[in-house]
This record gives sequence, C-alpha cells and structure tokens, in this order.
Amino acid sequence: MTIVVSSDISSDSASRAKHAADATPDLISAVIDEAGKLAAEVIQPTNQNGDREGCHYNPDTHEVKTPEGFKEAYKKFVEGGWTALDAPLEFGGQGLPHTLKFVVDEMVCSTNLSLGMYPGLTHGAISALHAHGSNELKQTYLEKLVSGEWTGTMCLTEPQCGTDLGMIRTRATPNDDGSYAIEGTKIWITGGEHDLTDNIVHLVLAKLPGAPNTTKGISLFIVPKFLSESGERNPAFCGGLEHKMGIKGSATCVMNFEGAKGWLVGEANDGMRSMFTMMNEARLMVGMQGLGLAEMAYQESLAFAKERLQSRSLSGPKNPNGPADPIIVHPDVRRMLMRQKVLNEGMRALALFTGHQLDLSVAHPDESARASADDLVQLLTPVVKAFLTDEGANNANTGLQVLGGSGFTTDWPLEQLVRDGRIARIYEGTNGIQAMDLVGRKLSLKGGQLVRTLFRVLSGYLKGNPEAPHREELKGAMGALEKATMWLATGEGNKPLLESKLVSARFYFEKLLPEIHWLLSDIVSGKDSMMDMGDDHWAA
Amino acid sequence: MTIVVSSDISSDSASRAKHAADATPDLISAVIDEAGKLAAEVIQPTNQNGDREGCHYNPDTHEVKTPEGFKEAYKKFVEGGWTALDAPLEFGGQGLPHTLKFVVDEMVCSTNLSLGMYPGLTHGAISALHAHGSNELKQTYLEKLVSGEWTGTMCLTEPQCGTDLGMIRTRATPNDDGSYAIEGTKIWITGGEHDLTDNIVHLVLAKLPGAPNTTKGISLFIVPKFLSESGERNPAFCGGLEHKMGIKGSATCVMNFEGAKGWLVGEANDGMRSMFTMMNEARLMVGMQGLGLAEMAYQESLAFAKERLQSRSLSGPKNPNGPADPIIVHPDVRRMLMRQKVLNEGMRALALFTGHQLDLSVAHPDESARASADDLVQLLTPVVKAFLTDEGANNANTGLQVLGGSGFTTDWPLEQLVRDGRIARIYEGTNGIQAMDLVGRKLSLKGGQLVRTLFRVLSGYLKGNPEAPHREELKGAMGALEKATMWLATGEGNKPLLESKLVSARFYFEKLLPEIHWLLSDIVSGKDSMMDMGDDHWAA
Repeated sequence: MTIVVSSDISSDSASRAKHAADATPDLISAVIDEAGKLAAEVIQPTNQNGDREGCHYNPDTHEVKTPEGFKEAYKKFVEGGWTALDAPLEFGGQGLPHTLKFVVDEMVCSTNLSLGMYPGLTHGAISALHAHGSNELKQTYLEKLVSGEWTGTMCLTEPQCGTDLGMIRTRATPNDDGSYAIEGTKIWITGGEHDLTDNIVHLVLAKLPGAPNTTKGISLFIVPKFLSESGERNPAFCGGLEHKMGIKGSATCVMNFEGAKGWLVGEANDGMRSMFTMMNEARLMVGMQGLGLAEMAYQESLAFAKERLQSRSLSGPKNPNGPADPIIVHPDVRRMLMRQKVLNEGMRALALFTGHQLDLSVAHPDESARASADDLVQLLTPVVKAFLTDEGANNANTGLQVLGGSGFTTDWPLEQLVRDGRIARIYEGTNGIQAMDLVGRKLSLKGGQLVRTLFRVLSGYLKGNPEAPHREELKGAMGALEKATMWLATGEGNKPLLESKLVSARFYFEKLLPEIHWLLSDIVSGKDSMMDMGDDHWAA
Repeated sequence: MTIVVSSDISSDSASRAKHAADATPDLISAVIDEAGKLAAEVIQPTNQNGDREGCHYNPDTHEVKTPEGFKEAYKKFVEGGWTALDAPLEFGGQGLPHTLKFVVDEMVCSTNLSLGMYPGLTHGAISALHAHGSNELKQTYLEKLVSGEWTGTMCLTEPQCGTDLGMIRTRATPNDDGSYAIEGTKIWITGGEHDLTDNIVHLVLAKLPGAPNTTKGISLFIVPKFLSESGERNPAFCGGLEHKMGIKGSATCVMNFEGAKGWLVGEANDGMRSMFTMMNEARLMVGMQGLGLAEMAYQESLAFAKERLQSRSLSGPKNPNGPADPIIVHPDVRRMLMRQKVLNEGMRALALFTGHQLDLSVAHPDESARASADDLVQLLTPVVKAFLTDEGANNANTGLQVLGGSGFTTDWPLEQLVRDGRIARIYEGTNGIQAMDLVGRKLSLKGGQLVRTLFRVLSGYLKGNPEAPHREELKGAMGALEKATMWLATGEGNKPLLESKLVSARFYFEKLLPEIHWLLSDIVSGKDSMMDMGDDHWAA
C-alpha cells in the first residue's frame, strides 16, 4: 500500500493550514482516512510480535534492538510525515490542529502502543525545546526531531525518586565551552536506546552545583546520543531494560550518564517548568492511549460477540438455522458492550473537546477566548489522563470478559490490550497524582477561575438547549459536581482516632456502601437501554 | 521445615472431628497455623518460577511437565494430609469443617494459585464421586483421590461450547463389559495432564447414543488415565496446552478421548446434576482464589507503602531523619490500602459465613436449620464467586497501583497476581453467568424462599443489635436490596427502538451517571475514615 497523506498535506496543504482555523473539513477527513490506513495496514501487523518478541539488550555494546518489523513500520510512519503533523511550520512541521493529532494518536495507540511511544515521547521533546530552548538549540535539534530522523526522550525518574523529583541526584557540572557534564542514573526511560533512528536526543533533569534540594533546584538539559557537530558518541549509555507486564516492544531503559555533554534548556533551576511542558502534553497523550486500547478492545469483543454461537436468546431463537444464537443477543453481553461503547464515546468527546480548547488557546483571535480555553485545558488535563486511563483499562478488561476463556488466552488480542494498558494508569504521574493536581492545584488556581470557566460552559449549554435529552440529569450531575467542588474548597477538620475495626467499618459505610444507591438506580432503570441498540449501530 | 499438621490431626484428631461441631478452637487454630507455614515456606517459593517457566508439553509422548519445584511442593502438600482436610472419613479424609478448608484455600491461592488448582479440582471430583458414584466406583477411586496419590479433573468445555453444554459432541458408546467408550475433544481442562502423580482421573461429560441435544441429554463418566486394575494406558491424551495471560504453572489442556474406557457416574442423562456438585464447589473455591490473590496483593502493597520514601506528609514530616516520608502517609495511598483492606475483610466474612452455612447444612441436628443453611449456600454461591473475583481482581489491581511503576515490572509480584487473578472472573461460569444464576434461578427458587431466608437473618441481626454501629446505613442498604429484589421479581415490559445515540445517552444517564451521587457522598464523607487507621492496625 502507499501512504499518500504526506504528498497531500506535507507541502502545500501544510503551509495553508497554519493553525486550527485553517484546516478544512476535507483536509481533516483525508488525514483521518490515511491515518486509519496506516494504523490498520502498517502499525497493527507489528503489534502481537512486538509483545512476544520484546526488545533485546546487548550488554557489550549497550545497544537495544526493537522487535522485528518496528524499524520498517517506523520508517513508513516518518515517510508519511506523521511525526510532523501538528509540529511548528518553521521547523518543517505541518502546523495542523492538535485536535487532529489526538485523533491520530488514538489510532496509533489502538494498533501498537509500544511502537507509538517512540514518536510520542519525541513530540513532547519537540514542544519543550520549542517553548524553552535557545535559538541555537532549536536550530540544531528541532528539524530532525520534527522529521522523525531522530527521536527524543524524557529523563526524569531515578531509582530513589519518581513523583518526588526534588530528590534527584543527577548532577550537571559546567564545562569551559558553555556545555555541562551530566553524571547520574535515570530509570524507566522510554526509548532511551533503540535501533529505529541514528540519533536519540535526551531531555534530562539534573542539578547544578549548589542548587537547593527541592524541585526549585532542578534544571533541564539536552543530551544527544551522538554530538551533532562531531558525530562523537556521548557517554549516555543504556544500562539495561526493564521486564514488564506489557508494552514489551517499548524499550524501557536504565540510562547511565557518565559525564555526557549536555546543554541547558531554559533558565537554570527552572527545569520543572520546561518539564511540565513535556509532561502536560504527555498526560494528554497517555489519556489517548487508554482510549485507544479501549476502542480496540471494543472492536475485538464486538466482533467476537457477533460470531460466537452459544445458547438461545431469552426472547426466542435469533439464529434459528444455527446450533445457537450469537452471544450478542444475551443481556449481560450487551450490557458489557454498551458500557464499552458509551464510555469510549464519552471519553473521546472529552478528549477532543480538550484538544479543541488546546487549539483555541493558541489560535483564537480573541485574547479572553484564548485565556478561557487555556483554563479548560489546564483543568481538564489531569481529568483526561486519569479518566481515560482508568475507564480505558476497565473497558479493555470488559472486552476480555466478553470473550470469556478465549480472552484469557494469547490466541486473542484482548489479554495484551489489558496488559499494555495497565501502565497508562501509572506513568506520567499516577492517577492519584492527577487527582492531587486537579484538587490540590487546578481547583484553587487563579482563585478558582478554571472551574468557574467550566461551569460557565456547562450552564451555557443548559441554557441554550432547553429541549436537550437528559437535561435534568445533567443538571443534577452538575449540581453534585458543584457541591463536591465547594466541599473540596472549604475542607473539614480532623476527628479523634477510633479502633481499627470501627475505622474499617466507617470507611465501608461512608465510601463504599453508598454505591448501592447507584446500583439500585441501575437495576430499576431496566434493560431497555441495553437491548434497544440497533444491529447496525454498534459501530456508529 | 516440618509439616506437623498431619500427625496432629490426621489420625486421632480426625476421627474425633467427625464434622463441624467437633472441631475445637484449638484444633482449628493449629491447622490454620500449619497451613500458614506450608503456604509461606513450601508453596510461595514456587510461585514466581511457575509463572516464568510455565508448563512444558511433549507432543511425542503427550506428556506435560510442570514447572520446577511443583512436584516437590505437591508431595509435601500430600504428605501433610492437606488434600484430605474436609474429605469424608470413610475414605481416609479428616472430616474437618468446610469452613476450615476455605481458610486453607485462601492461603494456598494467595501463594501459588497455579499449584493450588491441581488439588483444587481433585476436591470437586471427590465430592461428585462421593455424592453420585456407585459403591464400586467409590471404592476404586476415592481413597487415592483423598490421599492425593491421584488427582482429578472436570472435563466439560468443548471448542464449540462452554456455557451452552447442551451442545457437547463427546460421545459415550456402551461396551460389553458395562463400561463405555468415550470419544471426543475437551478443551481448557485444568490438570488434564501433568507429572505430579502417577494417575489422573477425569470426570467427563458426554452423550449416550440417542440422548437429546440439550442439557437433559448429558451423562457423567469417570475416565482414568491408567485403568486401575490392569494399569493399562487409557487412550485419553493431552493434545496440547493453552497459552495464557496467567496461571501459567497450571496445565490447561486440550484432551482427546480416543475411545477411552469410562464408567457412568450417577444416572444416565442426569450428568448435569453431578456436574453441578463439582461446579458449585468449584465456584466457592474460585471465590477464595479471588480473595487469596487480593490478600497477597494487599500484603505486598502495604509492605511497599511502608518502605518506599517519597515526598512529605501534608501535615508535616513523619520521617524527619530520612530524605522523605514513607508513601503510606499520603491520603491517596491510604485510600487505596483502605479499600483493599476493607473489601478483603468483607469478602472473607462473606466467604466464611457461606462456608459455615455449608457445614451447618450438613451437620446441624435440626432439620429446618439444615434447610435454612442450605438456602443460604445456594443463594450465596454465585455471589461469593462473582463478588470475590470481581473485587479481588480490583484489589489486586489497586495493589499494583500502590507500587506505581514498580508494580508494572516483573521485579515485583503484583503484576503476576493481576494476571493470575484475571481468569477467576471467567472460569467455572463467567460472572455474568453467576448473575443469571442468582437472578434467573436462585431468587425464584422455592417461590423466593432463599432470599427470604437471607432477609430473615439480616432482620434478626438488626433487631438483636439496636446499638450496632452503622445500623441505619445497613438498614438502608437492606431496603435497597429488597427494592431491587422486588423489581427483579416483577420485571418490566419492552419499549420501542430509539436512535443509537439516544440509546447510548440513555444507557449512560440511567446506568452510569448515577454513580455521581455515590461519588458525591464519598467526597463529602471526608478523609477521616482513610486517615484514622492506627499504624499498628493495617494487618489487624
């Protein structure tokens, strides 16, 4: 097959599509079609073997070989211009909307999450460098990262610290030539070493001499595997690979920086700000990973449910000439498929809404509209990350359940989707960290302005749509959200200790038992919303 | 180490402990202590290698080799008398309470689910044979199954049918000597072939000539690997192993019966009844698997949370001399640990209550008390299976989340617990099938008597404990349960089809959105029930 999208959009179309507002529906539609082809025909065929074969580490050369097929698929991904989709025009990017990038991300993550992570992390490095790097650094690195000729990494975690980055020990000592000597060990570095490209560009958090032992003493450095001018090998070596439950085709590296040459990105001791440029972008991408895997799980379980014949429908045979009916006729199977479908639709709507706000925050001509859009992006980033990965994982698990025993075997793709997706609830800040970001930071930011912006949008919708279906339920949910927000803003004091069993009991009765009222309303709302989906509408 | 339990209880104690009422607290306590030692010192050390090595199939000999260490651990399990714990006295069993067996099951499943499945399935075969087999069959097989010298299997599923057993194709043709020639292929047969014992006894569902093509045309046969008199190899061969997401040390076999000699167990065409003797027992055991894995996940994540230093407590340093506080001080980590702990406690209480009812249903001197206990066992069996495996899987996943990125690596046991536990929601009837059994069968059985018995027990508790903590919440929950039961008993009619998006929306608003009221009450009930657990009480 031929990936024609590059010729369509990378030259004249790209210069036309300066930002979100310029991308026409036809162009968007063509890009999405081509992304679908790429995902189905180039990326997906590498997925199962990537899991089975995994990555190979050579301790003598410190080199990593990716699974068979990855290099060729990545080459096509690069040739198609996909690494450049929403990257800045001045460095060879196509400048298309971020929203469109989200759509493509979902497809890539659906079809091979491990492979998608190499360009995924690169994208974050591009953004950090573009936002915070000097002109010289941008000129040296951006074009090759945008084109996909090189990839990028994000080197944060160390053995003694993940969440608590104030504790990092990697040191940066100034050299005479304005560069720094980077010394230290980083772990869990995605794409830290691989054979997809000739060079790898590491963005590394480290401490300058005398910097305080807090997050205010961290600086960001760019450390290439090979120095761009001399071609010399920089002593930034992979020391081994992690053995993981999933995403086995993604090289998760221990990286040893042994006096490697690096250059400061942004201001000294201001590395957390640059890091968050990468991190916020990565969090949105991880949300799309959760959705992508859930969507693939839905498609696979739906297909299985239509094929597998077992037992008869309660309302009489639906496949009278066969030995049994397809299991999609059974209420419990439909319940599972409905839950997958509805939550996937809702997650996608939330993600694309957020992507659209991201585009508006950059490209809207009105300043206050840009600010409002930015409020929403900041508020919703932890929600997209946590909600799409928690419910994405649940949906992948539900998909496996639809297949029954088959789903537990490696003959079907579901168990890999479940394993691959498990990490998304953890990396780029666990979902508990996302909750802290939302409640501890975003709700009080600018005196509560972010959440007020959201309520204004929701109220506007309710006011403007007096006949909308389920308007009253939405209003009720919004009321509950307002109450919860209010409660979180005012807080509550401590109470004295109780005996451990009483604490257990209270936790249960306060936190878990009230689920019963939800379950009750689920039960008495009956089966119609499960059973009424038309046969042709499962993929709609 | 020495397993002393056998000498303690297998001879004089066992003959003393005829049934539940005879087991003294001291005896129970000694058995539990010894089971704990066995689990920790003999079984657990085989767990990780069992997962990594898996089982080996030799296509030339049709033989299966279990992972290294399994054979020795199984030998100690047998020598300790553990296969005989609650088995009938007259065939060498110890006749101890089923409740005690549940406690031991939890420990075995906690420490190596794969290994535990070989004797676990044997136990079901013993029960079916004891309840339905002829005296001759019992004399031939029971003693060796009870002693663990032989193991048993349950051969139900075929490629074209799992849930829908009416569709089985395996045939039983009468031989001249009163035996039958069994011909057909069974799949997903746990322990169908292995090297732990010299003989394996298969209990096989098959159809007699002319039997109807429904579940009313199924008979149960006993088919030994080696014929007990002649020692001749019976043509019941393993045709291969499944490749699975987890429980890799458990040999999941394709079994080809090529005219193998079998004997009828129970009446012709009444095989489903015998099968359900095994199945109901297996369902309770699978519930304990879910709990066992969840308990191990809790212990592992709790230990990690006490060791791992990261960030400071919001209320000031708790480990001022260290570089950071242990993560157990953080509210979100405590929330996860509390959820694990509380649900594990609740699941264990439900399981042991059910086990106790099982003992009462056999051993209580009063006939109506036996009947009431049996009502509760029947009603609660699908609840124990589904609730303990769903929430067990959730708890194992929560445990992984506590470890963050470490939990996703194979350096820690959490990811194996999650993978191993995933099957428990599926086998011995998926949890959707359990829901059907509860709602479609158990609620209406004997005109609704089973659930009325449960309400009587709950009302009795409320009446007898006017000062019980959380009495009002429990009353409210019971009211919701009564309403739901009533609604399920009366049902509701169909409504016309709607457009697919409207169906999606309705499903969401009816089934999923009401969760928000639960979440709201979770939020406004505050943090005390998470934060008040005393440091010494996490294991209490």
